[in-house]
Amino acid sequence: MGPNTRSAVRVSHLVTITSDFGESDGYVAAMKGAILTINPAVRIVDISHQVASFDVMDAAFVLRQAVGYFPADTVHLVVVDPGVGTSRRAVALRYNDQTFVGPDNGLFALLLGDEKPSELVQLDRVDAYRTGTPCDTFHGRDIFAPAAAHLASGRSLADVGSPIKALRPLLWALPIDDDQGIRGWIVHIDHFGNCITNIPRDLFTRRRNGRAIKCYVGNTILGAVCTVYGEVAAGEPLLLFGSQDFLEVAVNTGHASNLLQIRRGTPVNVVFLEDR
Amino acid sequence: MGPNTRSAVRVSHLVTITSDFGESDGYVAAMKGAILTINPAVRIVDISHQVASFDVMDAAFVLRQAVGYFPADTVHLVVVDPGVGTSRRAVALRYNDQTFVGPDNGLFALLLGDEKPSELVQLDRVDAYRTGTPCDTFHGRDIFAPAAAHLASGRSLADVGSPIKALRPLLWALPIDDDQGIRGWIVHIDHFGNCITNIPRDLFTRRRNGRAIKCYVGNTILGAVCTVYGEVAAGEPLLLFGSQDFLEVAVNTGHASNLLQIRRGTPVNVVFLEDR
Amino acid sequence: MGPNTRSAVRVSHLVTITSDFGESDGYVAAMKGAILTINPAVRIVDISHQVASFDVMDAAFVLRQAVGYFPADTVHLVVVDPGVGTSRRAVALRYNDQTFVGPDNGLFALLLGDEKPSELVQLDRVDAYRTGTPCDTFHGRDIFAPAAAHLASGRSLADVGSPIKALRPLLWALPIDDDQGIRGWIVHIDHFGNCITNIPRDLFTRRRNGRAIKCYVGNTILGAVCTVYGEVAAGEPLLLFGSQDFLEVAVNTGHASNLLQIRRGTPVNVVFLEDR
Repeated sequence: MGPNTRSAVRVSHLVTITSDFGESDGYVAAMKGAILTINPAVRIVDISHQVASFDVMDAAFVLRQAVGYFPADTVHLVVVDPGVGTSRRAVALRYNDQTFVGPDNGLFALLLGDEKPSELVQLDRVDAYRTGTPCDTFHGRDIFAPAAAHLASGRSLADVGSPIKALRPLLWALPIDDDQGIRGWIVHIDHFGNCITNIPRDLFTRRRNGRAIKCYVGNTILGAVCTVYGEVAAGEPLLLFGSQDFLEVAVNTGHASNLLQIRRGTPVNVVFLEDR
Repeated sequence: MGPNTRSAVRVSHLVTITSDFGESDGYVAAMKGAILTINPAVRIVDISHQVASFDVMDAAFVLRQAVGYFPADTVHLVVVDPGVGTSRRAVALRYNDQTFVGPDNGLFALLLGDEKPSELVQLDRVDAYRTGTPCDTFHGRDIFAPAAAHLASGRSLADVGSPIKALRPLLWALPIDDDQGIRGWIVHIDHFGNCITNIPRDLFTRRRNGRAIKCYVGNTILGAVCTVYGEVAAGEPLLLFGSQDFLEVAVNTGHASNLLQIRRGTPVNVVFLEDR
Repeated sequence: MGPNTRSAVRVSHLVTITSDFGESDGYVAAMKGAILTINPAVRIVDISHQVASFDVMDAAFVLRQAVGYFPADTVHLVVVDPGVGTSRRAVALRYNDQTFVGPDNGLFALLLGDEKPSELVQLDRVDAYRTGTPCDTFHGRDIFAPAAAHLASGRSLADVGSPIKALRPLLWALPIDDDQGIRGWIVHIDHFGNCITNIPRDLFTRRRNGRAIKCYVGNTILGAVCTVYGEVAAGEPLLLFGSQDFLEVAVNTGHASNLLQIRRGTPVNVVFLEDR
């Protein structure tokens, strides 16, 4: 289905919200109130509101951990919006049978990676979903939340906007690889202190080709890939592929980031050893 | 409608919760369980549980950011209760077609400002909504949550309490203003570090009367009011009216409170310049 | 009803979630998506995701604060799982007319204390509730959440697993007591800084037998048990029995843990004074 196809009616009544708003203000609740005022039957699930402020890459990473597990036609409202009120576009799109709404600032391009949305509109049919003049500093409440409520209630993308050609592009920095090794880095530290790299399992497995490895990260050298944390003693570091299938540096029942002094951005070098 | 009018039946099935309980204990969940035990059809939305401990002014500010966006007849359960178990009253009230339940400790007076509740009762018909003896240290769970569940399920205020004349008064400290300027201060730092003053847009606009301004806050002097954060370069400070229409000191994509050393309580002086 | 009894069909459509996952990742949302994909009618309530990492005792304490207030047949999904992917069992159990699902690592034994589950199964009928191969590092999403969704939708324990005899045992360290006094310690510091001991009200009352007391905790000596925080002046320390009926050291409108330098594990000695 191309971006200009007439969109079908879909009613999931399920909206997730992701933002960098934190939880100490009433901002997230104001968005929820706006949604429930339009349709009190919508069900709302928080993905996270602790995305690093203005950090579209962190938001895309957190979304990747979660969106694939939601039902078809879920509407994902994503508001990390450093350019609120400026000329950045407001968009809605379809991808993998789900709907996404938010500012077009590169976040959605990061989320989709090499793939394209099956439908993409700019939110310009404002009379279809908005009442009054939106506040210039809070489009999450006044534009995106109302649009999400209508999309979760049976409105199509064509009802709320006009087709556009492409998202604003933004690319993940990919690991550098050749037959001797892979040079990537840490892209996310999770709540447990697990240090997640940008090295996907399929690339690693293909390049490794059964050889032994050494992995250099900060001051730590690791030599084997485990399948579960408990494969090493408590307090010991390990490598494994996490729940998103990226290589991850962890410490069994410990906080790898603190214990190994690894930060977001720390380089990770994997070397493939030749048989001796 | 006066405080003694017979109240109408209203069924929203929607309860919001605001507290200073944090999210690391089971306290908020115990309140939710108490509500769902009375009526499993009630839908619950958190406003915030990160209100500063015992701080009714912080709670009133956070509520003002959110309650106006909820549907009519939403029941707002608000439990910031430094006097739990003492003689402070337990109340329910109607304001702007919404219902509020909680301790009468000045928080609701701050929320309503110059306005009055259209109905106001003391929660003394305990047999109508409570079973057993409430724990002296957790009225949120044993008194307020059950009352909120019943009010969201069709009980009237008259069903759960007896009319009283007035809330316990508490006033926002208002900015001092004259034709030369306005002297206010910072009343809230939000999650982004935006520093929100107690200077409302209408007062500012009326007193300013088209003149140029200078705004002194901490070590920073600002001279123009923007409409969006992106009107200045990233990292630059600015003044604007935020989503609640109060003057706010911000830094574009930065944390103004940390960068400009501004705290809650910091004075903000706006001076109106005469044409030269 | 013994562990081998055929279990009845129960449909609560209510699932609570407790974990040590924090709220900055998409992990909790991935579990919610997995539940809603199986049954979009399930309603989900968070108990807490701020359990101390890998700390089954902290999780059991937080659950005790909340589970008793939920309706019958609520399904409590509890994922604090330091041994994910190792040989620890995955279980579901019935206790006090509620259902619990999670890893069998001692947490449920702590929660039940001296009591036994009325039904207990190992989650081994995976075809009944799971699709595909679970990720070795995230059984919360791939095993426990789907099992909880099915149990909240009418499946019985017998549908998802085979009866087993007993939970993996783990015991709360109990206070030491004799007629002269009770020696316990602090087991939990709550969000307000209240310091909760492992000394239950009934033991205290029985041993005290009407005598005066002195309570030694850190550098503080307390001599009376209050019923509400406001019985002493703001900033003054006090003893009372909290909302779970354990003795607690608090400061009226203050943070007792910080102000009195009391930590989890600090000893608490209660001495009963003879009449002079």
